[in-house]
Amino acid sequence: MKKLIGNAVVGQSGGPTAAINATLAGVIRGVKENVGDGAIHTLYGMRNGVQGLLEERLIDLTAFFDSEEKIKALEHTPAAALGSCRKKLPKLGEDEAVYAKLLSLFKQNDIRSFFYIGGNDSMDTVAKLSAYTKEHDYEMCIMGVPKTIDNDLIVTDHTPGFGSAAKYIAVTLQEIIRDCAVYTTPAVTIVEIMGRDAGWLTAAAGIPLAVDGLVPDMIYLPERAFSKDEFFEDLRAALAKHPNVVIAVSEGIRFADGTYVCEGFGIASVDAFGHKQLSGTGKALEHAVKNEIGCKVRSIELNLPQRCAAHLASATDLAESVMVGRAAVKAASEGVTREMMTILRESTNPYRVTIGHSDVSLIANQIKEVPSEFINARGNHVTKACAEYLLPLIAGEAAPAYKNGLPEFIIL
Amino acid sequence: MKKLIGNAVVGQSGGPTAAINATLAGVIRGVKENVGDGAIHTLYGMRNGVQGLLEERLIDLTAFFDSEEKIKALEHTPAAALGSCRKKLPKLGEDEAVYAKLLSLFKQNDIRSFFYIGGNDSMDTVAKLSAYTKEHDYEMCIMGVPKTIDNDLIVTDHTPGFGSAAKYIAVTLQEIIRDCAVYTTPAVTIVEIMGRDAGWLTAAAGIPLAVDGLVPDMIYLPERAFSKDEFFEDLRAALAKHPNVVIAVSEGIRFADGTYVCEGFGIASVDAFGHKQLSGTGKALEHAVKNEIGCKVRSIELNLPQRCAAHLASATDLAESVMVGRAAVKAASEGVTREMMTILRESTNPYRVTIGHSDVSLIANQIKEVPSEFINARGNHVTKACAEYLLPLIAGEAAPAYKNGLPEFIIL
Repeated sequence: MKKLIGNAVVGQSGGPTAAINATLAGVIRGVKENVGDGAIHTLYGMRNGVQGLLEERLIDLTAFFDSEEKIKALEHTPAAALGSCRKKLPKLGEDEAVYAKLLSLFKQNDIRSFFYIGGNDSMDTVAKLSAYTKEHDYEMCIMGVPKTIDNDLIVTDHTPGFGSAAKYIAVTLQEIIRDCAVYTTPAVTIVEIMGRDAGWLTAAAGIPLAVDGLVPDMIYLPERAFSKDEFFEDLRAALAKHPNVVIAVSEGIRFADGTYVCEGFGIASVDAFGHKQLSGTGKALEHAVKNEIGCKVRSIELNLPQRCAAHLASATDLAESVMVGRAAVKAASEGVTREMMTILRESTNPYRVTIGHSDVSLIANQIKEVPSEFINARGNHVTKACAEYLLPLIAGEAAPAYKNGLPEFIIL
Repeated sequence: MKKLIGNAVVGQSGGPTAAINATLAGVIRGVKENVGDGAIHTLYGMRNGVQGLLEERLIDLTAFFDSEEKIKALEHTPAAALGSCRKKLPKLGEDEAVYAKLLSLFKQNDIRSFFYIGGNDSMDTVAKLSAYTKEHDYEMCIMGVPKTIDNDLIVTDHTPGFGSAAKYIAVTLQEIIRDCAVYTTPAVTIVEIMGRDAGWLTAAAGIPLAVDGLVPDMIYLPERAFSKDEFFEDLRAALAKHPNVVIAVSEGIRFADGTYVCEGFGIASVDAFGHKQLSGTGKALEHAVKNEIGCKVRSIELNLPQRCAAHLASATDLAESVMVGRAAVKAASEGVTREMMTILRESTNPYRVTIGHSDVSLIANQIKEVPSEFINARGNHVTKACAEYLLPLIAGEAAPAYKNGLPEFIIL
């Protein structure tokens, strides 16, 4: 495709992360750096993703971000600064009006580049819009920029946002393990971590294995069927060794017959994308252990902080999040379109990555699970290979600026 | 009392905090600095508080902490490094054997100084041991060193450990509020914070009021009776203003008739000290809001991380925690006994404190609640005066050293 001159629009979609604004900052930096041939005139931000775009709620980001200080603050602000949405575009050919509205908006505002920062469902939006504009011969750069704490997008080595969530989980588990170690009475602590279908976040609890650090006694991922019998057997063995047992579980763990561990204890609801909204896996296990073993049991749900704890962001993750945003603009200015940016791992030790891009239509709606060589044979922990693979992603601390003891965030 | 030469023992008791080891480090520093007349020969650490002392499980801390590096690492290690206990000494005159055993241990090891780092229940131990040794004419320095995230000890302006927990709560709420703001659908997020009888920790959610920052829409402390009717009235008013309502509640909030808000939804158990062990206040409110309002509701229990998040410790809190430990040794070397160390606030702006000490028997078993001028008239938020009072306690960031992206803690 030839290089385009015109305006651009950027949006954020799906669940917030601690690094999604770093990617937005990367897009802003990319636009500001991208002068001359193929330059973008104005970068608009769509509020609340495509939902806000359809309602024409746009903000001129080129004008707002007039200083390095503001861009820097944005990089350290958690959650989508532009707002987010869970809107799924209709199937192509089903509701033409939505697409026609978007196309007319693009034409009206001379929007020639579209950057969408999001996860799996957002890439579905990118893929559909790519297909529609191609079909209607509108010359346009449509780029997906990955973001998800779940780390479940294929092709890319890992996703921006995952490293910061993984760091929060690994560090918080270190603290919880120390906290639980202070008493001598037998006690079980179950930590529930996000992860519906992929266990990457829960696997992060095992990262200290790579450096012979403290890890939970048991780690359960949704990639392996959960056996109640083996669980109690392993728990009894752990309690025989030391009084304070800590267990990390993914919210999405299932029994061999496919039913969620949390089921029977709570009712699962279904979201707009057909995903089951789970809760209470930790609580369900807490009750089960109380009944079966009878010792002190506590469950901790890491909940929202695991995805928005900017105060404990991974410096590596934030830097890469900026990189993919910036690289997306560069790629667009070179005529690339209908692709998702990717991170390619060149080497683990020393850690080295490059930024690439790949056909978004082949990435959307796929799930990358934790591979079997990263889970131990018993299915109750991660392997050292897994820990070594994940370790570089949490390297470095990237805290926001503080004033009066409180973080300074930017509000758009 | 005349100056004593001999050995000393230090213990940690009650719930862990992010700063309790900083106080232990302060005691170690105090002993190392306290040379010459009144010097302590060896400082022993009792494992698991008086429980471990009775079992003669001691560690030679003078020998272990042979470098500044180790002491520094101890200051940043969360949870009681010596282990803790919840043992309550029997009433004086009830079980003489326990006291006789302790006294003989003191004599046998030439222990002339006893430092006990803990909260309300630990000060009860200090007061009882003080009375017993006085009655038995054993010349000994017995010092209580305050520690509790609850900030509910009287006489002292505030307690070491509170500032770090308050900082964690204030910062995490900033992030949660940002996270909740990304969607446009009406949603209520209820954050449950520790605090059985005193609302200090929950009040910390309102600290940003002092600097016109983001605060939860409503804040409920146990100091005020909780009215379901007023709650729903205020919640409806908040939802009419913006779609994302965030509410902070103490675990210990009660209705006007004294029943806990969590009751009726779960059963409360009672611990060794006769305290009700609560859980589920957030969950109970989540259910109530779902039934009454019908919008999306989520509850988040900050749980253990609020007391062990060393990665987000307040620099002011850690420095003061070291100061009280160090000052306790100095006081003991000067012949002070049967007192608890205190922090006296000289001025709020600029923030200035001095360290003092006060009769422990008058402090134990009392509770300092949040005063009424710190709670608004409606009883659903804190006042600006409260926020301004708390603000200096969270000043400064004191993170542990990191290696490979993970914090470096010391294990005794």
